[in-house]
Amino acid sequence: MDLATIIGLVGGVASILYGISLRAMTRSEVFVFLDAASLLIVLGGTFSALLVGTPLIEVLRAWRVALRAFFHRTESPVELIERLARFAEHARRDGVLAIEPLVTEDDDPFLSEGVDLVVDGNDAELIEQIMSTELKRIEDRHSAGRRIFEMCARYAPAWGMVGTLLGLVLMLGHLDEPENIGPGMSLALITTLYGLVFAHLFFGPIADKLVRRSEEELAIKEIIMRGICSIQSGDNPRVLRSRLFALLPPRLRPERW
Amino acid sequence: MDLATIIGLVGGVASILYGISLRAMTRSEVFVFLDAASLLIVLGGTFSALLVGTPLIEVLRAWRVALRAFFHRTESPVELIERLARFAEHARRDGVLAIEPLVTEDDDPFLSEGVDLVVDGNDAELIEQIMSTELKRIEDRHSAGRRIFEMCARYAPAWGMVGTLLGLVLMLGHLDEPENIGPGMSLALITTLYGLVFAHLFFGPIADKLVRRSEEELAIKEIIMRGICSIQSGDNPRVLRSRLFALLPPRLRPERW
Amino acid sequence: MDLATIIGLVGGVASILYGISLRAMTRSEVFVFLDAASLLIVLGGTFSALLVGTPLIEVLRAWRVALRAFFHRTESPVELIERLARFAEHARRDGVLAIEPLVTEDDDPFLSEGVDLVVDGNDAELIEQIMSTELKRIEDRHSAGRRIFEMCARYAPAWGMVGTLLGLVLMLGHLDEPENIGPGMSLALITTLYGLVFAHLFFGPIADKLVRRSEEELAIKEIIMRGICSIQSGDNPRVLRSRLFALLPPRLRPERW
Amino acid sequence: MDLATIIGLVGGVASILYGISLRAMTRSEVFVFLDAASLLIVLGGTFSALLVGTPLIEVLRAWRVALRAFFHRTESPVELIERLARFAEHARRDGVLAIEPLVTEDDDPFLSEGVDLVVDGNDAELIEQIMSTELKRIEDRHSAGRRIFEMCARYAPAWGMVGTLLGLVLMLGHLDEPENIGPGMSLALITTLYGLVFAHLFFGPIADKLVRRSEEELAIKEIIMRGICSIQSGDNPRVLRSRLFALLPPRLRPERW
Amino acid sequence: MDLATIIGLVGGVASILYGISLRAMTRSEVFVFLDAASLLIVLGGTFSALLVGTPLIEVLRAWRVALRAFFHRTESPVELIERLARFAEHARRDGVLAIEPLVTEDDDPFLSEGVDLVVDGNDAELIEQIMSTELKRIEDRHSAGRRIFEMCARYAPAWGMVGTLLGLVLMLGHLDEPENIGPGMSLALITTLYGLVFAHLFFGPIADKLVRRSEEELAIKEIIMRGICSIQSGDNPRVLRSRLFALLPPRLRPERW
Repeated sequence: MDLATIIGLVGGVASILYGISLRAMTRSEVFVFLDAASLLIVLGGTFSALLVGTPLIEVLRAWRVALRAFFHRTESPVELIERLARFAEHARRDGVLAIEPLVTEDDDPFLSEGVDLVVDGNDAELIEQIMSTELKRIEDRHSAGRRIFEMCARYAPAWGMVGTLLGLVLMLGHLDEPENIGPGMSLALITTLYGLVFAHLFFGPIADKLVRRSEEELAIKEIIMRGICSIQSGDNPRVLRSRLFALLPPRLRPERW
Repeated sequence: MDLATIIGLVGGVASILYGISLRAMTRSEVFVFLDAASLLIVLGGTFSALLVGTPLIEVLRAWRVALRAFFHRTESPVELIERLARFAEHARRDGVLAIEPLVTEDDDPFLSEGVDLVVDGNDAELIEQIMSTELKRIEDRHSAGRRIFEMCARYAPAWGMVGTLLGLVLMLGHLDEPENIGPGMSLALITTLYGLVFAHLFFGPIADKLVRRSEEELAIKEIIMRGICSIQSGDNPRVLRSRLFALLPPRLRPERW
Repeated sequence: MDLATIIGLVGGVASILYGISLRAMTRSEVFVFLDAASLLIVLGGTFSALLVGTPLIEVLRAWRVALRAFFHRTESPVELIERLARFAEHARRDGVLAIEPLVTEDDDPFLSEGVDLVVDGNDAELIEQIMSTELKRIEDRHSAGRRIFEMCARYAPAWGMVGTLLGLVLMLGHLDEPENIGPGMSLALITTLYGLVFAHLFFGPIADKLVRRSEEELAIKEIIMRGICSIQSGDNPRVLRSRLFALLPPRLRPERW
Repeated sequence: MDLATIIGLVGGVASILYGISLRAMTRSEVFVFLDAASLLIVLGGTFSALLVGTPLIEVLRAWRVALRAFFHRTESPVELIERLARFAEHARRDGVLAIEPLVTEDDDPFLSEGVDLVVDGNDAELIEQIMSTELKRIEDRHSAGRRIFEMCARYAPAWGMVGTLLGLVLMLGHLDEPENIGPGMSLALITTLYGLVFAHLFFGPIADKLVRRSEEELAIKEIIMRGICSIQSGDNPRVLRSRLFALLPPRLRPERW
Repeated sequence: MDLATIIGLVGGVASILYGISLRAMTRSEVFVFLDAASLLIVLGGTFSALLVGTPLIEVLRAWRVALRAFFHRTESPVELIERLARFAEHARRDGVLAIEPLVTEDDDPFLSEGVDLVVDGNDAELIEQIMSTELKRIEDRHSAGRRIFEMCARYAPAWGMVGTLLGLVLMLGHLDEPENIGPGMSLALITTLYGLVFAHLFFGPIADKLVRRSEEELAIKEIIMRGICSIQSGDNPRVLRSRLFALLPPRLRPERW
C-alpha cells in the first residue's frame, strides 16, 4: 500500500489519541470516544445515501478502483518508452507480427490491446479512435470511483449532525434528570466528531489521492497510445523515443535522446 | 424499482431507528421523533419554494422523469447493436423500406422516430440535425428533472432551520415555565433533523442517481443515433458493428466483431 | 401572474403559520413573529448592500425585468412558426416589402425589428450580426436581473445574522434582569428567521424562476431570428417550417410538416 | 462618487443604527457597539491575510483601480461613436495624419494610443494585436482589483470569528465572576458582527460593483478598438457608424444610422 | 523573502496579540492561548489528511516550490527582452552557435534549455512543441504546489472543530465539577481558533500568493519561449523587440521600440 496513506491514517488517529490524552484527566477517558450508535448512524447513513445515489454496481466497482489505485505500482515511464522503442525496432525489422510475442501476461491490458490492434493490421484512424475511446472510458471509470468518495465526504458530516440532533432531542427529554445532561450531550457530540473525522481523514483525502493517481495512470496510458500509433505508422525507434521523451520532465530524460 | 435505492432508503431509516434505540432509555422515545409540525414546515416550505422557483408543468414532469428513471430498465447495448446490424442487413438487401416492420411498439420512441426519418428518405444531414436536436432536448429534460431534486436538497435544510428558529422563539417566550424548556427545544431541533434527513437521504442522493441514469440513457441513445446514420448511409452490417462496438467497454464486446 | 408563484408564496406563508399554530400554546403567539426592527435590518441591510454593489439603474431595471417575466405570457412557438411561414409566402409572392403590414403593434419588438431589417434590404450577414448582438444583449439583461435576486438571496441571511448578533449583544448587557433574557433572545432569533425566509421563499426561488423564463424567452427569440434569416434568403414556406419545427419537441410538431 | 454607493453605505449604517434604537432600552446602548479591539482584529487580520496573499504592489494598485472605478464617469458610447466617425471622415479626406490633432489630453489613453498606432502607419494585424493585448491587460488589472475585495470579503467574517473565539476564551477563564459573563460574551460577539458587516455591506458589494464597472469600461474600450481598426482600414464614416451602433442597445441608436 | 508576506504574518499575529491585550484583564492571560494539544490536533490532523490525500513526493516538492516562489526574485521582463534581442543580433551575425556562450549558469534553466534546442539545429516545430510541453509541466508543478496549500486551508478549520468537539466531550464528562467547566470549554475553543488562524492567515493566503507568483513566472517564461522561437526563425532584433514588448504593459515599454 501507498506509504504516505498509511503514515497519514496512523498519524491522524495518533494525533487524536495523543490530543485526548493531553486533555483527559484519566487515561480511561479515551474509551468515552468509542460509541457504537455514532458509528452506526454515520456509516449506516452515509452508505445508505450512497446506495440511493449510485447504481449498486458502481459502488462495488469504486472500491475495486480505489484499492487498485492504492496498491498498484505505476510503471516507470522511462522503461515503458524504451520498451516501446524496442517494439518499434522489431516491427521495422521483422514486420508488425514480430511484436506480438513481446507482450507478456503481466503487461497493462491497454498495451496488449493496442498491440493486438496493430498486429491485426487495422488502419491508423481506427486504432486511434478505439484507443482514445478506451482512454476516455478509463478516465470515466476513475472519476466515477472518485465521485463516490467525494459523496461519502459530503454525506458523512451531515449524518454526523443528524446523529447529534438525535442525541440532543433524546437528552432534552430528560432535562429533569440533571445527572444525564452531561453524558447525553457528550454522546450526542461524538457523532458529529465521527462524521468530521471520517470526512476529513478518510473519504475526502482518498478522493484527493484518486485524482492524483488517475492523472499519473492516464499519463502512462497516453504514452502507450502515442507509442502504438507511432509503431503502426512505421516510425523508426529514434523518432519514437524523441517524440515520447518530450512528454516527460527533463530530469527523467536520458542525456541525448 | 432500482434495488440499491430501496436498500438505501430502508437502510438509512433503519440506521436512524436503531441508533435511536441504542441511545434511548425507553423504547417509546422513538415516537418523540414523529412531529407533524416539523413535517409540515420542512415539506410545505420546500415545495412552496419549489413552486415559486419552477414553472408548475416542469415540477410535474420532473416527478415523471424521476419515476421513469427508477423503474425503466435500460436496454442492453450489445443486443441493441446486434439489432441495428440486422436492420442494416435488411436495408442493404431489400431497401430501407424493409426495416419499417422490424420496429415494434415496445421500442424506444427515439429508435422508431429515427427509422421513420430514414424510411421517409430524408438526407443524412437533416436526419442527424433532427436526431441530435432531439438528443439535446432529452438531455435538457433530464437535467430539468435533476435540478428540481437539487433545489429540494438545497431548500430542505434551510426550512428545517426555519422550523427550529420558530420553535426556539416560541420556547423562549415561556422561559418562566422551566418544565417546558426541554420539550420545547427538543421539538425545535426535530425540524432541523427532518430537513437534514430529507436532504441527505432522499433529495440529494436522488439527484445524484438521476445524473447517472441520464448518462446511461444518453449513451444508449447515442448508439441509436450513430446506428441510424450508419444505416442511412448504406454501411454494411460488419462496418456498423465495428463502429458501434468501439463505443462499448472491452468486456462487453464480442470476441471478434 | 404565474399561478405556481402565487401558490408557492401563499403555501410557504401558510406552512409557517400553520406550523406555528401547531406549536404555540395560545393563538396570539403568532404576533410574536411580527417585528419591525427585524424587517428593517434584513430588508434595509439587503437593499443597502445591493445599492453598493449594483449601479442604481440596473436595480430598477431588474425589477421591471422580473415583473415582465412573471406577467408576460410566452407566445406559442407553433403559432409563431406558422406566422413566419405566412410571412415567407408573402415575401416570395409579392416581395419582402409585402410583409411589413403583417407586423402589428402587439408583436414582439424583436420580430418587428427583424422584419424592418429585411424590408430595408440589408444583406444576410448584417441582419444576422445585428439580431444575434441583440439576442446576446437580451440574455445579458435577463442575467443582470437574475443576478440581483441572487445577490439578495445571498445578503438576506447574512443580514439576518447581523440582526441576531445585534439583539444578542443588547440582551447580554442586561443579564442581571433575568426576565428579559427569554424575550431578548427570542427577538434576536426572529431576525435570522426573517433572513432565511426571505432568501429561501422569495429571493432565491425567484432567481431560479428567472433562469427558466429567460431560457423560454430566448428559445422563442431564436426561432424568430432563424425565421427572419430564412425569409431574407428567400426560402419557401415548406423549407422554413421544416427547419423551425425541428427545434421543437416532437409532441408540438404537426403530423407531417 | 457613485450615488447608489453612497445611498447604500449610508442606508446600511442607518438600518443598523435604527434597528438598534428600536431594540435598545436606553439610547446610550448604541455605544456598546463601538469596540476598538474588534475593529483591530477584523481589519488587522483581514489586511494581514491580504498582504500574505497578494504582492504589495497589487494591493496598492487595487485601491487605485477601485477609486477610479467609483469616481470616473464612463463616456457616452453614442458620443464616442460620433467622434470616431468624425475621425474616419478626416482620415479619408486628409489622410490619417490629420486625426492626430483631434485627440486631446483628456481623452482615454487607450484611444490616443490607438490613434498613434494608426498615424505611425502600422499594419492592421499589428494594431489589432497590440490593442487586444492591451484590452486583455486592462481586464486582468480590473479582475486583480476585484479579487482583492473578494479576498477581503472572504477573510473578514473568518477574522470576526477569530475575535469572537478570543473573547469567549478570555470570558470563560472568569466564569467565577458572574458579573463579567454577560459583558464578556457581548464583547466577543461584536467582533463577529463587525466581520459580517464589513463583508456584506462593504467588501462583498464593492467587489460586485467592480465587476459591473469593468464590464461597462471594457464595452467602451471595445468600441474604440473596433473604431480604430475601421479607420485604419479606410472605412467611410457611414460604414463605421453602422458597424459600431450595432453594438449598442436599440434605444441608444439614432433613428437611421 | 517577500516583504508583504513578512509584514502580513507579523501584522496578523500582532493584531491578535494586541486584540487580546485590549480584552484581557491581566497580561498573563495571553499564555492561556498557548496550547500544545490544540497545535498537535490541528497540525497533526491537517498533515495526516494531506499525506492520505497526496503522494509523499508531491508534498515535499510543494514546500520547495512554495519556498522558491517566496524567495526567488522574478527577472525584469525589460532586461530579459533586451537580452534576447542581443542573442538575436549575435545569431544573425555569427550564426546560432554564437549564442551558446552568452548563457550563464545563473540563467533560468528554461532559457538555457531553449538555447540548446536552437544551437542543436532542431526545427521550429519541435522546439515549440518541447518548450510548450515544458511550460505546461511548470504550470502543473505550480498548481500542484498551490493545491497542497489549498487542501491545508480546507482541512485546518475542520480539524480545529474536531479538537473542539474532543474537548467538549471530555468537559461534559465532568459537569459535576463546575470549576472545570470554564477552563474546559475555553481549552476546547482554542483548537477551533488555531484552525481558523492557520487557515486564514497562513495556508489560504499562501495559496493565493502562489497563484499570483505562478502567473508572473509563466509570463516571463512565455516571453522566453517566444523569443527563442523568434531567434530560431532568424528574426532581426528590431522585429523580436517589437513582438515581445507588445506583451508588456505600456509603462514598461521603452519610448520607441
